[in-house]
Amino acid sequence: MNAGKPKKRVVIVGGGFGGLRVARGLDGVDDLEITLLDRRNHHLFQPLLYQVAMAGLSPAEIAVPIRTIFSRQRNCRVILETAIGIDFANKKLHTLGVGDLDYDWLVLACGSRHSYFGHGEWENYAPGLKSLEEATEIRRRVLTAFELAEKESDPAKQRRLLTFVVIGAGPTGVELAGALGEISRYTLSRDFRRIDPERARVILIEAGPRILPTFAEKLSDRATRDLEQLGVTVWTNTMVTNVTSDGVVLGGESVQAATVLWAAGVAPSELNRALGIDLDRQGRVIVDKDCSIPGHRDVFVIGDQAHLEEEPGKPLPGLAPVAIQQGRHVARNIQLELKGKAREPFHYLDKGQMATIGRKRAIAQFAGMEIAGLFAWLAWLLVHVYYLIGFKNRLQVMWEWTWSYLKFRRGARLIVNKDWHLQPLAAPRPVEAPPLTAPLPPPPTTQAHA
Amino acid sequence: MNAGKPKKRVVIVGGGFGGLRVARGLDGVDDLEITLLDRRNHHLFQPLLYQVAMAGLSPAEIAVPIRTIFSRQRNCRVILETAIGIDFANKKLHTLGVGDLDYDWLVLACGSRHSYFGHGEWENYAPGLKSLEEATEIRRRVLTAFELAEKESDPAKQRRLLTFVVIGAGPTGVELAGALGEISRYTLSRDFRRIDPERARVILIEAGPRILPTFAEKLSDRATRDLEQLGVTVWTNTMVTNVTSDGVVLGGESVQAATVLWAAGVAPSELNRALGIDLDRQGRVIVDKDCSIPGHRDVFVIGDQAHLEEEPGKPLPGLAPVAIQQGRHVARNIQLELKGKAREPFHYLDKGQMATIGRKRAIAQFAGMEIAGLFAWLAWLLVHVYYLIGFKNRLQVMWEWTWSYLKFRRGARLIVNKDWHLQPLAAPRPVEAPPLTAPLPPPPTTQAHA
Repeated sequence: MNAGKPKKRVVIVGGGFGGLRVARGLDGVDDLEITLLDRRNHHLFQPLLYQVAMAGLSPAEIAVPIRTIFSRQRNCRVILETAIGIDFANKKLHTLGVGDLDYDWLVLACGSRHSYFGHGEWENYAPGLKSLEEATEIRRRVLTAFELAEKESDPAKQRRLLTFVVIGAGPTGVELAGALGEISRYTLSRDFRRIDPERARVILIEAGPRILPTFAEKLSDRATRDLEQLGVTVWTNTMVTNVTSDGVVLGGESVQAATVLWAAGVAPSELNRALGIDLDRQGRVIVDKDCSIPGHRDVFVIGDQAHLEEEPGKPLPGLAPVAIQQGRHVARNIQLELKGKAREPFHYLDKGQMATIGRKRAIAQFAGMEIAGLFAWLAWLLVHVYYLIGFKNRLQVMWEWTWSYLKFRRGARLIVNKDWHLQPLAAPRPVEAPPLTAPLPPPPTTQAHA
Repeated sequence: MNAGKPKKRVVIVGGGFGGLRVARGLDGVDDLEITLLDRRNHHLFQPLLYQVAMAGLSPAEIAVPIRTIFSRQRNCRVILETAIGIDFANKKLHTLGVGDLDYDWLVLACGSRHSYFGHGEWENYAPGLKSLEEATEIRRRVLTAFELAEKESDPAKQRRLLTFVVIGAGPTGVELAGALGEISRYTLSRDFRRIDPERARVILIEAGPRILPTFAEKLSDRATRDLEQLGVTVWTNTMVTNVTSDGVVLGGESVQAATVLWAAGVAPSELNRALGIDLDRQGRVIVDKDCSIPGHRDVFVIGDQAHLEEEPGKPLPGLAPVAIQQGRHVARNIQLELKGKAREPFHYLDKGQMATIGRKRAIAQFAGMEIAGLFAWLAWLLVHVYYLIGFKNRLQVMWEWTWSYLKFRRGARLIVNKDWHLQPLAAPRPVEAPPLTAPLPPPPTTQAHA
């Protein structure tokens, strides 16, 4: 009915939890022309990424091509592209490969990446867990360490190969450490002849006084006991002062470890620095109550990339539900404006939080309740499988887990070498934005769990 | 009952179809100590590898850790290791990482790799399909080409991005070309806005006079028609004279293509050159009727790595059934010798051959019959799923295919970048054996299908 009228353009940067919800929330609005950019071709269900790293799931089980999600949404176009800056005055988004994109509304939903607190060189020795590439790299390191230990006759070298250090005890660090404990105790134990995988050391290091600091203290204690039952050593109040090829240095102490994993800090997208607008100490964009940038009402920032305070001094946490709710809200506000109505402010509905430690071990707090153990684990399982995008994935992941649960197997235990020697595709390929030269200051929290 | 008696040592190099059957065939023989070496941690079901390259299956669905296969076989030890030579006189296998391994019987089952007929530099532009790494690299190139075409406004550049050339029309080449045709026509067509994936060109190039030359001529013709119905152009009697970043050169002609895939030739393991024994023109080890090396009766060579003639001048083909039957046979002969009995000669039971072109399209010949179409395709499906190792994988792959069949979807359409920037694991890692300096002469057949 609006044929002939020029369409308004919505440009969305990022196909994570937030960006997807904006685009999906505008499905069927014929007055709009939506362009969604992402540097990768897939949406990633980040809460289960640790399962890919720990060989429990395959990449295709927790990721889905963004194109597939929008194949039937005719007002949305998807491109594999990198955003590098914004011309606020002329309402243009600068991109690396396709030049400038004009927008009427722009939504930034670029998420976060690792922060090594100014020690970028640690990344070589302690990869973090944000992408499928990182997950399969961590998988390769963990499985290769066991394979090398099997061949090693020197006890000191074998001990180093069988030592796994996880830095940072937010939900991701706890999940990784718990899964490492389980793999060593149950999954790999019968497969090796010369080593006893149960002798593997898993050490979880946390700078603060307790693990999972965003949870109630009672639940932190329970999670610590659960981890210890899986053979994980928990060291709180412990600062990592260096990470090298040998392992980690903790002030005067040091631990020799072939495998070190980083789950200690995140920082928002590099794009923020290029915008010339107000950022918080962590580098997040400080936004208004409707998620728009003050002074640039047509640009919204949501999810991990944004700093939104509902109570003074308490920005919303970097959690998937925040991004999802903000995404839906921005879509609603765009529709209101299309109809000439006023925007509504965003309100976060806190549905609680949960973290899993291992099979039958999880903690959860919501609606004033604090639960732990089998029931919390089942709740965790249901919530995570329910939110997996795509019916097929849900069934498949349920099947995969049921099988693993019955058999203590991990189906995806494949070492796929990364140093494959082929040249890159001859045609121009999307590249990562150049890294910032100045490191970001350390964030106040240990771990934001997206 | 033989406790106290020193155990005999069997060393097996390679965890492919042949090597696995040797080790499994010796299960329960307490007098033996078996060591199986492989450079990779997984057994690969090669006949379905093209499905990983074409985003139909995930790596974990066609690969299984070798360790898992042998977790309950107590007389078999698995190590991730590379063989680099043999000391026949002292019965020692030289390895890259763990020194020498003593053997009473040695089995070489190293399989084959690509041969670029002396043009190793073509590999950069035209990857082949032998490993999971290569399959995911091919997947990345194909999907990235469509993504770049979606962004491209120059029609000539878009045409180049949407041109896919497959070199070599043996079973692998035909499977790749057929799958590319299907993906373009059905799977991707609804996902793109600016390009019409149906306009993608898929060109299958064959040097010989017809595709699938090991099949009856009638079946070759049928396969050609099937391919053409999927939009694949078949060029026979066409020699590739150069492969560059632009595409392929065919004598006086040339085709601009962003994606070129190599399925034109294989050569046996590099190890053969280091042995100082008789090789055939392709570089395969010429073996006796019991698969042992003449003059070295305690060393067996099986599968693609061996040249065994049952009829003079007609060596057995490089097919999985040959390797499987030889592996079982070698295990039987070792058991006979353990009991002080004489070895038996190997006889190949030809069960026929089959190749698939796409959904409901396949050809097969066995027991004097030649079939094509839906029935051949169902036979192909049953045989391949039946031979997948592991009950779980079979169910999962059936489910995956049923879903794809119903929905024309491809679940594994993920682009995972290979140029991930982390440093290698600090501990020593297994590396590939150094390449041969002298290129091997071209083999007589266009494609051996393992």
